[in-house]
Amino acid sequence: MTKPHYGPPDGLSVPRFSGIRTFARVPYSQDWANADVAVFGVPFDNGTSFRSGPRFGPSAIREMSHLLRRTHPVHGVDIFGTLSVIDGGDLATTPGNTERSINQIADQLEPVIAAGVRPLVLGGDHTVVLGELMAHARVHGKLGLLLLDAHTDTGDTYFGEKIHHGSPFRRAIELGCVDPHRTLMVGARGGVYTDHDRAEPRSWGIEIVPCEEFRRWTPAEYGERARKKIGDGPTYLSFDIDVLDPAYAPGTGVPEAGGISTAEAFDFLRALAGVDLVGCDIVEVAPQYDGPGQITALAGATVGFELLALAAIAKLKRTGAAR
Amino acid sequence: MTKPHYGPPDGLSVPRFSGIRTFARVPYSQDWANADVAVFGVPFDNGTSFRSGPRFGPSAIREMSHLLRRTHPVHGVDIFGTLSVIDGGDLATTPGNTERSINQIADQLEPVIAAGVRPLVLGGDHTVVLGELMAHARVHGKLGLLLLDAHTDTGDTYFGEKIHHGSPFRRAIELGCVDPHRTLMVGARGGVYTDHDRAEPRSWGIEIVPCEEFRRWTPAEYGERARKKIGDGPTYLSFDIDVLDPAYAPGTGVPEAGGISTAEAFDFLRALAGVDLVGCDIVEVAPQYDGPGQITALAGATVGFELLALAAIAKLKRTGAAR
Amino acid sequence: MTKPHYGPPDGLSVPRFSGIRTFARVPYSQDWANADVAVFGVPFDNGTSFRSGPRFGPSAIREMSHLLRRTHPVHGVDIFGTLSVIDGGDLATTPGNTERSINQIADQLEPVIAAGVRPLVLGGDHTVVLGELMAHARVHGKLGLLLLDAHTDTGDTYFGEKIHHGSPFRRAIELGCVDPHRTLMVGARGGVYTDHDRAEPRSWGIEIVPCEEFRRWTPAEYGERARKKIGDGPTYLSFDIDVLDPAYAPGTGVPEAGGISTAEAFDFLRALAGVDLVGCDIVEVAPQYDGPGQITALAGATVGFELLALAAIAKLKRTGAAR
Amino acid sequence: MTKPHYGPPDGLSVPRFSGIRTFARVPYSQDWANADVAVFGVPFDNGTSFRSGPRFGPSAIREMSHLLRRTHPVHGVDIFGTLSVIDGGDLATTPGNTERSINQIADQLEPVIAAGVRPLVLGGDHTVVLGELMAHARVHGKLGLLLLDAHTDTGDTYFGEKIHHGSPFRRAIELGCVDPHRTLMVGARGGVYTDHDRAEPRSWGIEIVPCEEFRRWTPAEYGERARKKIGDGPTYLSFDIDVLDPAYAPGTGVPEAGGISTAEAFDFLRALAGVDLVGCDIVEVAPQYDGPGQITALAGATVGFELLALAAIAKLKRTGAAR
Amino acid sequence: MTKPHYGPPDGLSVPRFSGIRTFARVPYSQDWANADVAVFGVPFDNGTSFRSGPRFGPSAIREMSHLLRRTHPVHGVDIFGTLSVIDGGDLATTPGNTERSINQIADQLEPVIAAGVRPLVLGGDHTVVLGELMAHARVHGKLGLLLLDAHTDTGDTYFGEKIHHGSPFRRAIELGCVDPHRTLMVGARGGVYTDHDRAEPRSWGIEIVPCEEFRRWTPAEYGERARKKIGDGPTYLSFDIDVLDPAYAPGTGVPEAGGISTAEAFDFLRALAGVDLVGCDIVEVAPQYDGPGQITALAGATVGFELLALAAIAKLKRTGAAR
Amino acid sequence: MTKPHYGPPDGLSVPRFSGIRTFARVPYSQDWANADVAVFGVPFDNGTSFRSGPRFGPSAIREMSHLLRRTHPVHGVDIFGTLSVIDGGDLATTPGNTERSINQIADQLEPVIAAGVRPLVLGGDHTVVLGELMAHARVHGKLGLLLLDAHTDTGDTYFGEKIHHGSPFRRAIELGCVDPHRTLMVGARGGVYTDHDRAEPRSWGIEIVPCEEFRRWTPAEYGERARKKIGDGPTYLSFDIDVLDPAYAPGTGVPEAGGISTAEAFDFLRALAGVDLVGCDIVEVAPQYDGPGQITALAGATVGFELLALAAIAKLKRTGAAR
Repeated sequence: MTKPHYGPPDGLSVPRFSGIRTFARVPYSQDWANADVAVFGVPFDNGTSFRSGPRFGPSAIREMSHLLRRTHPVHGVDIFGTLSVIDGGDLATTPGNTERSINQIADQLEPVIAAGVRPLVLGGDHTVVLGELMAHARVHGKLGLLLLDAHTDTGDTYFGEKIHHGSPFRRAIELGCVDPHRTLMVGARGGVYTDHDRAEPRSWGIEIVPCEEFRRWTPAEYGERARKKIGDGPTYLSFDIDVLDPAYAPGTGVPEAGGISTAEAFDFLRALAGVDLVGCDIVEVAPQYDGPGQITALAGATVGFELLALAAIAKLKRTGAAR
Repeated sequence: MTKPHYGPPDGLSVPRFSGIRTFARVPYSQDWANADVAVFGVPFDNGTSFRSGPRFGPSAIREMSHLLRRTHPVHGVDIFGTLSVIDGGDLATTPGNTERSINQIADQLEPVIAAGVRPLVLGGDHTVVLGELMAHARVHGKLGLLLLDAHTDTGDTYFGEKIHHGSPFRRAIELGCVDPHRTLMVGARGGVYTDHDRAEPRSWGIEIVPCEEFRRWTPAEYGERARKKIGDGPTYLSFDIDVLDPAYAPGTGVPEAGGISTAEAFDFLRALAGVDLVGCDIVEVAPQYDGPGQITALAGATVGFELLALAAIAKLKRTGAAR
Repeated sequence: MTKPHYGPPDGLSVPRFSGIRTFARVPYSQDWANADVAVFGVPFDNGTSFRSGPRFGPSAIREMSHLLRRTHPVHGVDIFGTLSVIDGGDLATTPGNTERSINQIADQLEPVIAAGVRPLVLGGDHTVVLGELMAHARVHGKLGLLLLDAHTDTGDTYFGEKIHHGSPFRRAIELGCVDPHRTLMVGARGGVYTDHDRAEPRSWGIEIVPCEEFRRWTPAEYGERARKKIGDGPTYLSFDIDVLDPAYAPGTGVPEAGGISTAEAFDFLRALAGVDLVGCDIVEVAPQYDGPGQITALAGATVGFELLALAAIAKLKRTGAAR
Repeated sequence: MTKPHYGPPDGLSVPRFSGIRTFARVPYSQDWANADVAVFGVPFDNGTSFRSGPRFGPSAIREMSHLLRRTHPVHGVDIFGTLSVIDGGDLATTPGNTERSINQIADQLEPVIAAGVRPLVLGGDHTVVLGELMAHARVHGKLGLLLLDAHTDTGDTYFGEKIHHGSPFRRAIELGCVDPHRTLMVGARGGVYTDHDRAEPRSWGIEIVPCEEFRRWTPAEYGERARKKIGDGPTYLSFDIDVLDPAYAPGTGVPEAGGISTAEAFDFLRALAGVDLVGCDIVEVAPQYDGPGQITALAGATVGFELLALAAIAKLKRTGAAR
Repeated sequence: MTKPHYGPPDGLSVPRFSGIRTFARVPYSQDWANADVAVFGVPFDNGTSFRSGPRFGPSAIREMSHLLRRTHPVHGVDIFGTLSVIDGGDLATTPGNTERSINQIADQLEPVIAAGVRPLVLGGDHTVVLGELMAHARVHGKLGLLLLDAHTDTGDTYFGEKIHHGSPFRRAIELGCVDPHRTLMVGARGGVYTDHDRAEPRSWGIEIVPCEEFRRWTPAEYGERARKKIGDGPTYLSFDIDVLDPAYAPGTGVPEAGGISTAEAFDFLRALAGVDLVGCDIVEVAPQYDGPGQITALAGATVGFELLALAAIAKLKRTGAAR
Repeated sequence: MTKPHYGPPDGLSVPRFSGIRTFARVPYSQDWANADVAVFGVPFDNGTSFRSGPRFGPSAIREMSHLLRRTHPVHGVDIFGTLSVIDGGDLATTPGNTERSINQIADQLEPVIAAGVRPLVLGGDHTVVLGELMAHARVHGKLGLLLLDAHTDTGDTYFGEKIHHGSPFRRAIELGCVDPHRTLMVGARGGVYTDHDRAEPRSWGIEIVPCEEFRRWTPAEYGERARKKIGDGPTYLSFDIDVLDPAYAPGTGVPEAGGISTAEAFDFLRALAGVDLVGCDIVEVAPQYDGPGQITALAGATVGFELLALAAIAKLKRTGAAR
């Protein structure tokens, strides 16, 4: 008996605008044993400091992800032929209780990761990454981190709360989940409270590349710098949609003018081909602030497509298969 | 071993904004044997004559249906305790081929109906009702019909096409699926091409109550008139969202100013308590034309709640259970 | 050689979503000699005191007017068979110069009215009615006036300007165009600056019926009161879209909560059947504030349909033709 | 030296679209000694269970409140001539910490109330009413309550949290701030979890009038029932914008189809003329879900106008002044 | 008697927001004999595979085209002084019948082309280009093709249908209307079903330049490559608005993140100065998905301005006139 | 006693979504004596030639400006620590009377400027700059001018009116307020009426750099060219939001496709570090045309942040303080 291989139905036999909204139209399933990648929504947004709303992010990204097709033409990889992909639905969280929610996220993801599945998480606000990193660290140990984000999210307390969408990486480092010396953050821009906001995380070992500089990098430079920084250990990638300029991603909670385009983001991500991420996420899509064209949700879904392509390439590399 | 009973998760243990978007958060399933009601989407809109878009209606209604709760306080009935309800997903249709699509709808619904399940269909444009009526007629024979709609949809050819969203009831009568003498249409308004548009279907036996008159009826009058017209045979109810005024349902393809409110619609539907419908649908929700508040999709979802309540009451009556 | 009769193309041979946007798809023409009614846009909004934008009202109303059909089912009149209707395009005005614009409106409309055509004007803000009334008065003498509006528009200067969208009827009375003793204003609501705002125009002879009272009238009462007030002389009707509640007409500049519904408005207008208006307008549609469903523009277009029906009935009555 | 009297500038000398956004353009001030009414925003929404967003409610209501004028034509009262009104700005709360926020609200309002000022609070989600009621009870003792709301907000824990936007009145009663026997709740509708949801608060003495019944009341009936229920003690009024139908108030977090219109709401509120409320609020306006016409914010602002009119009438009655 | 020369009215004597919505405010006319260019709308969208809606594209583009002025400052050409331009209105098509519609398009355009007019077509979905190419081929013979598009539109059947918006160029080549060896397609991006999707049309002789490569070309390179590919024969240009990034063109049916900007598109088109196109189109503008700023429609209108500039330059070159 | 220093509250003690909407949450004050910079709104838009609406620009920019933080990380300057900044509210203007409004603007700003305050004005349409320039010239004499704008705004009469949003710089030069030989205009694009539109202002001495050329400049080139052109005299900077591409700034009245990005705009502005502007403005933000993400208002607010940074750097330079 052959193992099941999960993927989307044929776009020419079931119209892409049809079907229950799972990511990329893959089956809704909890069959971790037979999946390479599982997509999860985490509709949690109690950590937002300006506009709230990303609790509806997973739904919006899934809606637009129905546009996705099988094959990545730049990498030349048949993503859904290579990977068995399922949508595991939304993780349970507790509205109004951030700490408990983070632990719930960690507890739900840990067995999935332990089963060898690579999770792709759709946020939710950036607070949720803390639960993800905890789960990965339990399985893989201390992680390297690639962050694309308009903010470094290394702040401290916010109105006395330790855990919120501006602090997850500080907490992850405190908890020993993330190695700051293997952490590269790109895209930071906009005003800061004080110079200390960036100086402090740099003092821990994090490399922070402001957007003004990052926009001048070539994709190859990014690929090289990222590989050098993360080294050989297990690495996680977090994509905050607000790294994109508000023209490309209006639907987010703390937009910062002056970001990169989706085309540039894709170029940078493609430069990571061969990197074998243990997990990744796309956070801070707030569809209330997206326009009728839903371009933020589309950007989020397409970043998911790029991340799946990286996973497929990594699998082919691991298994020695030709692309 | 007990039979499974399907319903939504507890709103106090899983937040209502969470989860894969099925109708009212019930399970996505094809277990017809253990369901009283199955909800289906039919994302088909090739039959539209002005604004298109209801191919995204099922998705939008499901999104807003997550607000629904278990119990109907006016009828005093625990809907999901009484009924086992599943979401059967979207039916397959063929974009660009209306006739084939109608047959596909009929063929997919027939075995579900034959298994004793009552389908609740989310359109799609009104063309889809033809396939539904064909399926029901195959199982139940000629049907009585209750229509709430701003248009009678009894037109003839449109640019040479026989099947489109303005003609389904003419075709259903021609095919012997619907008995015009057991058909009550309420809510028609707006300009007509000629007086013949209403005179002809009346000549077949259909009772057409224009909205100007209908708005002056009490719910009790409607309940009485409907029962009298449909008699004892199997009866189908079709709810075109455009029976509502554009203030209540802006998201539709052929809006007509001067309709009824959702409160009035609910009052009318509640007056049917005890009528045992073989099936029903909610059509013509076009979310592109809905505003950010998504009130049309909410109205559609809540009409679904009212129709489920009718199904629950009918089941309690059939099974002799006390409410 | 027969005279031309102008009307829309057949909706079953040219789709209603097709064609250059004229009102109700009638020909764009200046053939006053062969028209009963000419529709004009007046894209002028320099007179607005809160939100501006009705300069785009004519375009928006024309867009939604493509939904209109030939025959009014309540009156039972074939509107476009009875009336020869053209769209005369937009009148020239001078942005930034209100007084000159009013005179331009009057000068352009006068020969049309003198030719026996009944103009239906699409505003623009309510300032434009002053130009219309001047033109009508030049041809017909002092006019009776039926106003449906959330405001009485009988204010005096606004920042030193005498002519603006809050003062047209004061100016029209001063100029002798309108007879206050033959003037009925219904629908006024919302706060006022002082009690004097309504007391003064009442002292001139105008009958002002606040919306709170008007909502309790039957259509028949309105028809009777209107006929009694206007008597036998030439009469003009002005429909400010803000007489509708913001739920029905969000797209306007000075919305006032607590208005009437479109269904109620239609009932009131239908009660005027037999009144032979010399002209009429629909003003203050500001599509920037309308939602994606464009329900304000649709309401405006449908009010136009009702007003055309009144014109058709009046013509049938004048010409002694049976309906 | 005369005491200052605070009110809006003249709408004919400063355009209403101009100026820093305070409620109704009154001065931003903390001069409690010279104010009859102080308006406060409470931009807190951590208690929401479906759509979040009312943290931006105060800003949106203030924006549309610039449309308001001085005098209420139905009551015939010069509101801003009668009352000295200031905008006290936004109260401090702690994002992410509901309990602390409630206490902050109470602590900030208490001295204002003790100074004899009547606060009009703009929410924020309905959680904030708990802090308001605590403050009022500290000064006035146990309160009577008039609630207009689509929900009774008498629920218990939500995911283990005791304080959220579905429970404030249960908590206020537990704390002895509100007397259930002097509490009238109107407008409840939509599904419930169980029948217990309404039976339990009724068992405490609260009178709950479902919307289906409430819609059939005359304003006079409401005025009479409300007066009878609240008796002579100090009384608070809370207006949840979702008591309005979604057509009138799409911009809210838990919309329920089948509500009342703004015109009906105003009629009900006007029937309370003479009742001397110690304070009141307007909550759950979520502008993210409002359309471009901002009709929900306008409805909220106009409810504020009605509540100010009640305050003016009560002051005139207290001081024996003629209206 | 001089021949008429058609163009827009003076923007300083008729405000640009005024007038019946024709393209760039040129006259609505069928006087082919006196026109260099005729603009046509083709409001047909039965061929869409994801979001529908471009049936309203011609109306939306015309609305925003009122912003256009006479002279192109980069080319230094007085477009409307050089060219006599009319708006021929919308072509008739048959909703729901794609094949018949294509033939109608061809039959209506053929005599216009035969009269020496260059048509500029506003879609509609990309299916309509097939009818256009058929008409041009009947007059001019086999055509060269320049395509700017996020998709190659060289697919085969879609649900059994041969003609849809993903297949027009395959069909045009099969019918001998287009020479694949004289065809350059730029801008393709996003996922594909299989590698075959691009390999097959390349095997026919088409040059396909993916967007990732195209974005790195200079305008001069594009001009050179295009000229080389199309050679000397008659050439058609088709501009699918989705070649633009969704940030620049959200209002389209199958948006693909990662496209070019409007500024880049204009640069590329300007590099074609001197190329004498027999016809051109702008397709897939779906205004339902555009935001309130209508930037997609504006982009479409401005692309039209660029294409008219190319036509003017070509005419000056043909007639030997100095610019 | 120390002088007051005005700035925003701490974002960690008052949430940024809280508080009366002043620019960047600084105090609303008229204490010119203790302010370095005063922000003013000028909600005037009678000068618009296409879409109106910027009368609501100040409100929208203030709303989004609440996102701003203290410190500019690229310049490394603590803006609000360096500068004492107040929001002076909105200037009085006269709706419908452009000339009087311009004089009002000048008269209100003059004493502020004379007190040594640098005003940052939020428009309003571009007409308002004329009043600003008059005020500055009265205090400082003839000004140099840096303009970033899609239009040169050097037109002449518009429908007989001399002062409108297309002519302010012609008028300012005529009045001797601006020195054309010290004027650099960048970003002009889109069609023109005739070549004369640019040739004439160039003949006066103005340097006009079309957007097509400007986009190819490096920031350093801009900084150098600007410094060279303006020389040593007092200089004013005017930022018309439409210099940005419509993808970045859809909410404006006369959008022109093909503009620069916000990132590019910031780079250019940063290249002016050290230039000591006497005043500046941000005009033509029309929030009606902005999407739900309000990215145009955010862009406007962030340009304000950049301009404040320039003012802070200039102050540090003037006062010899180290950054």
